[in-house]
Amino acid sequence: MSETQHYQIGNFSFQNGTTLPTVSLAYQDINPSAEKTALVVTCFRGRLPNTCTFASGALKSYRVIVVALFGNGESSSPSTTPGFPSTVDYPDCVRAQHQLLLDGLKISTLDVVVGFSMGGQATYHWTMMYPEMVKNAIIICSSARTSGHNRQFLEGPKAALENATDYVPVALRTSATPACVRGIRAFGKAYSAWLTSADWFDQQLYTSLGFNSQSAWDETTTGANYNGWDADDLLAMLGMWQRGDITALGKEPNLEASLVRINIPVLLMPCQSDQYFRWEASEKESKMILNATFKPIPSVWGHIGGAGACKEDTQWMDNEISQFLSR
Amino acid sequence: MSETQHYQIGNFSFQNGTTLPTVSLAYQDINPSAEKTALVVTCFRGRLPNTCTFASGALKSYRVIVVALFGNGESSSPSTTPGFPSTVDYPDCVRAQHQLLLDGLKISTLDVVVGFSMGGQATYHWTMMYPEMVKNAIIICSSARTSGHNRQFLEGPKAALENATDYVPVALRTSATPACVRGIRAFGKAYSAWLTSADWFDQQLYTSLGFNSQSAWDETTTGANYNGWDADDLLAMLGMWQRGDITALGKEPNLEASLVRINIPVLLMPCQSDQYFRWEASEKESKMILNATFKPIPSVWGHIGGAGACKEDTQWMDNEISQFLSR
Repeated sequence: MSETQHYQIGNFSFQNGTTLPTVSLAYQDINPSAEKTALVVTCFRGRLPNTCTFASGALKSYRVIVVALFGNGESSSPSTTPGFPSTVDYPDCVRAQHQLLLDGLKISTLDVVVGFSMGGQATYHWTMMYPEMVKNAIIICSSARTSGHNRQFLEGPKAALENATDYVPVALRTSATPACVRGIRAFGKAYSAWLTSADWFDQQLYTSLGFNSQSAWDETTTGANYNGWDADDLLAMLGMWQRGDITALGKEPNLEASLVRINIPVLLMPCQSDQYFRWEASEKESKMILNATFKPIPSVWGHIGGAGACKEDTQWMDNEISQFLSR
Repeated sequence: MSETQHYQIGNFSFQNGTTLPTVSLAYQDINPSAEKTALVVTCFRGRLPNTCTFASGALKSYRVIVVALFGNGESSSPSTTPGFPSTVDYPDCVRAQHQLLLDGLKISTLDVVVGFSMGGQATYHWTMMYPEMVKNAIIICSSARTSGHNRQFLEGPKAALENATDYVPVALRTSATPACVRGIRAFGKAYSAWLTSADWFDQQLYTSLGFNSQSAWDETTTGANYNGWDADDLLAMLGMWQRGDITALGKEPNLEASLVRINIPVLLMPCQSDQYFRWEASEKESKMILNATFKPIPSVWGHIGGAGACKEDTQWMDNEISQFLSR
């Protein structure tokens, strides 16, 4: 496993107007001597060590840079950085990542950018913000613009956390403030049924993860899986996700006009059973992109099928990525 | 509009072991002189006056008794009844409804029982508990057993409410306890994206309800729509829903063996875009019931399509019910 490194950027201005004297980007540099380079961006509640990178499969012959979104607790986040802006957006993340690559790592060409979920939305921003630098893009279980339905679903965990009895915004916390436990648990509960799919529950596939009941799965999924996550970091990322929209870059007035500008090959891999980043939306996007390959993951694992939660799905994606990159 | 009446039952024992000296069932008696009789059962967060009864359409020539589930704030509920049991279940509701009809209204035959959502689950219980009394059943957007996915989705609003800063269980409230506002709002938020469908949001169908934006729709849907609802009443109904399972009646060991006992005609009308009471589950049930008619509502209105939220869907259901009852 690769070690996590940190790259500092001085005097960084976020698009909400906040400027910080220093921000930090956490990243891993896997197989750094390889000729071709891939960038993989983390997802919501994603940390570098557990990101599905395909580095031992389809990207085995690539240098793989894995970079953490702002707000994930590894890169600068509300929990790590006093004065962190009240809102952070994909363009902030992608601009900082661009600086890391160009100035920090002296990389000026990315053979491929890969992202799952929020990482996929960041990947879309890469194709729009630095088109000259990206040769291929792989968007897994994601969308160019967060749908109204997806935005509304996120209102649930957000409200569950913000109204919880032990939620205190980071700016108001003291050394005596107890940890936010109930709020994060409620967040996890309000999120949990969206993660997979109705068929996944019907087939009791939590048993394939080693849980002998749905409530045992719930206990870990809405509990231990949030260990180490700060309430305000979750909220910072969630807000970025809700606002996710490549048309907000202002380069083109609408989605079709934006997507048609993408002139590199794009592999779109939604999951057939994803409840919020739906394959139907990816299919529509694929028709607006000049050179798109649309390959829905045939799985009942829903959204997390694209995150590497199911070995067969990961193998399937790995094969598709290999084919896509070797065409 | 019919007036709400109350029927008192003395010495009522709930299946959790609690006995109350009196419980009250709220009901409406529409068109009482008609020859044929229909029973309509309320749904989750459903009140008698806003229940979709088909009384001016397909059931125009019927006496329509509309009856409120325990926990809805009209029939006995945590908010109205000191010592209300910590759990209430469908068999409690249906047993009490049976007493209302047989002893109170002297009705011994129901030409049809109709229910949407939780009302549909109650209807399933009617067919199993009092088969000799029911001639037809109409189950709208519901299921004979709450799915694992549905149970998990409900964990979200439940946790959002129970962990909220202003939630106080009814037994611990005093006259100084402020109303639970934030908790109920969080409940509504965690529920809201499930109500309709992703396509409904894509098509911005909140505009057809008079809202000019998704956030205006959200404001009412997660706010004003909960006016007058007590936190513990919502939780009582939610628990009943989560435990909803006709096999728990113990008459047969599994779902198929239970459903095959139903020997009356059943009309199953799930909605094609319902995210939790899915049409696929209703279709499976329809294959286990000897005399089932399976008619999915062709709509993007999701679950609430079956509640009368969209005029076209309601008209469609009304036609199907007419055909079903006149066969």
